[in-house]
Amino acid sequence: MRKVAIVGGGLAPFGVRQATWKELAQEAGGATFRDIKNLERKDVDSLFVGAAMPERFAFQSHVAPMVAEQVGVTPTKVITRTELACASGQSAIRMAYACIAAGLSDIALCIGVEKMNIPDPPEMQTSMACVLDREFDGVQGASAPPFFALCANRHMHDYGTTREQMAMVSAKNHHFSTTNPFAQFQKDIPVEKVLTSPMVAPPLRLFDCSGITDGAAGVVLTTAERAKEFTDTPMYILGSGQCSMGSNLANYKSFSTWFPLKEAAKEAYRSAKIGPGDLDLAEVHDCFTISEIMEYEDLGFCEKGKGGKFIEDGKSDLGGKIPINTRGGLLGTGHPLGATGIAQAIELMQQFRSSVPRQRLVDNAEIGMAHNLSGAANVHSILIYGRNPP
Amino acid sequence: MRKVAIVGGGLAPFGVRQATWKELAQEAGGATFRDIKNLERKDVDSLFVGAAMPERFAFQSHVAPMVAEQVGVTPTKVITRTELACASGQSAIRMAYACIAAGLSDIALCIGVEKMNIPDPPEMQTSMACVLDREFDGVQGASAPPFFALCANRHMHDYGTTREQMAMVSAKNHHFSTTNPFAQFQKDIPVEKVLTSPMVAPPLRLFDCSGITDGAAGVVLTTAERAKEFTDTPMYILGSGQCSMGSNLANYKSFSTWFPLKEAAKEAYRSAKIGPGDLDLAEVHDCFTISEIMEYEDLGFCEKGKGGKFIEDGKSDLGGKIPINTRGGLLGTGHPLGATGIAQAIELMQQFRSSVPRQRLVDNAEIGMAHNLSGAANVHSILIYGRNPP
Repeated sequence: MRKVAIVGGGLAPFGVRQATWKELAQEAGGATFRDIKNLERKDVDSLFVGAAMPERFAFQSHVAPMVAEQVGVTPTKVITRTELACASGQSAIRMAYACIAAGLSDIALCIGVEKMNIPDPPEMQTSMACVLDREFDGVQGASAPPFFALCANRHMHDYGTTREQMAMVSAKNHHFSTTNPFAQFQKDIPVEKVLTSPMVAPPLRLFDCSGITDGAAGVVLTTAERAKEFTDTPMYILGSGQCSMGSNLANYKSFSTWFPLKEAAKEAYRSAKIGPGDLDLAEVHDCFTISEIMEYEDLGFCEKGKGGKFIEDGKSDLGGKIPINTRGGLLGTGHPLGATGIAQAIELMQQFRSSVPRQRLVDNAEIGMAHNLSGAANVHSILIYGRNPP
Repeated sequence: MRKVAIVGGGLAPFGVRQATWKELAQEAGGATFRDIKNLERKDVDSLFVGAAMPERFAFQSHVAPMVAEQVGVTPTKVITRTELACASGQSAIRMAYACIAAGLSDIALCIGVEKMNIPDPPEMQTSMACVLDREFDGVQGASAPPFFALCANRHMHDYGTTREQMAMVSAKNHHFSTTNPFAQFQKDIPVEKVLTSPMVAPPLRLFDCSGITDGAAGVVLTTAERAKEFTDTPMYILGSGQCSMGSNLANYKSFSTWFPLKEAAKEAYRSAKIGPGDLDLAEVHDCFTISEIMEYEDLGFCEKGKGGKFIEDGKSDLGGKIPINTRGGLLGTGHPLGATGIAQAIELMQQFRSSVPRQRLVDNAEIGMAHNLSGAANVHSILIYGRNPP
């Protein structure tokens, strides 16, 4: 197995964009190539496009070759789109990682893209609901906000987690996003404002929820051996973990513990030969405030049930035990489904390069995690990245 | 890079099925596990679901974990859906291949599924059109039949290919499908009937076109080293090639030569260390009769422009130079988009095992190819399989 590195990447600004999905993909592709010295488009031999739902948001299928044409690459080894709902972007990186590691590709481009703000909001909302099982769960009214509200209520009941603690997650991540010109939301949202924002699905209010966002992101992967041809500061893949457990909500063993996350984390730490204490920072999937709190616990950053206290004590803030979501998370930057996992990788890469703004820099960071959940948190995907080769 | 083998597989019967996409996936999963001795569901550590358009055909996204639950597996290493329109199924195999070769998975299940016969035929037809670029080509009326009609007209003009020769492809493949109880169409369609069937897109008539089909297929991959634990007759992956070139039809250099197919074939032969003359049989993507004729040429089975003569001379029939589409092809078995690439692999595996009906058996076959095109033939995907390890 060959070792693999990310040698650069770039973003299309996240937000409500006057741009089609193709234009967003092209912007991210352009930013990616501008970031990487010595890489020409003709040298890319594979393309992985992470996109969750262009069939519904743009009535367009088979998007991978359209991205190839739009970005100006001609993959001669591998091309595919990966779809895993909210983890579609990380899934693109994972497949590129596998192909490079196996020797099936030498230089892979990953583009994650989603255009979610469309002229027909009910179509967008109904489409978002279909990431859960329509036959089992959709008919009961389950979509993302009600599902995560179930988790929040159960976590409050089981562990005494408070609304204030959830609001602190939102305030922290929105504060980080004030440093991020690529974020959809760039204003501070203090705890009080979260707690009084409009109710969405009790107990979750508007600022407990990530946004409906247009955006795109790109990274290039190659072998660790060749990485220095393209950048002085490659970021290496140290390990990975992923687990899918169940789908139908009626079969869940718990709503306050995500067992597939614990499994994915175990495999990620095992393959990277590290423990949670070795991480200098992490990007975790804060689609809702309660998600980040549960992730502190099930990723092993704190004891089970102590996630609320973890945020309250500032352990996930800059200067804390492990700074979390320094780019602003999904809550602050928005969540264009296919782009998020790739944007997280870019943040870690820029942290390792010390090229993020000083206000969110984690000094001398060497090991970081990127985590995505998808659907009703029944699938969890983790990559562990390092500033130094494995 | 670890060597990889397919150790078994199974099908859900293709046709107009009174079954949901989930039921089809479950049928294929069940058939797959019944085919493989000593494999338990708990031993599968990764899942790759090939599906082209469940978002439109079933208004369902994030299908991978739903297939996991339906089939009864709990992937703890890798899970994703792959989408590449008509090559979505082969794309699942390709990603499983990469993950096993790289050591990211040890036992991978691939399920390809598509439920295309839905209660709303206009929705199905419009959805099928969105595998081509809607913005550039859709507005000009381009969908699959008109595009392949363009190719047919141009090929007739450039090389003198005849309607009779195209009809012979259909007659051959429908004849093969009379031996296949899993095929959608199991009746002989003689040349005369093809030539007088209803016009679809001139010069292509009804029996020049593959069907609208429900179906599913599954295979399991593992390392070549472990393959014999599960079967006495593994099928090995010898090589692969894939190329994406262009998208917008206005940029095509030719409609009578598929340049990305020539590129993909070159890489497939190179990686398998064989030439076209070493193949004992092939499954190629006969979505339309003209496709198979062009594939004879661009895959190197005959000289450019001689594809019509190749079928006329019986070179692609049993006993000919290279028997093509012995299971009945897309024309005979139907084309459930996500399932087709996996069903092709199963045919080759069963040919190597000599377990197909005598009437279509290629004696002592040792090396075979599976080919899919997708979209407007701008992406071509090839895997080369062998009865013996590479």
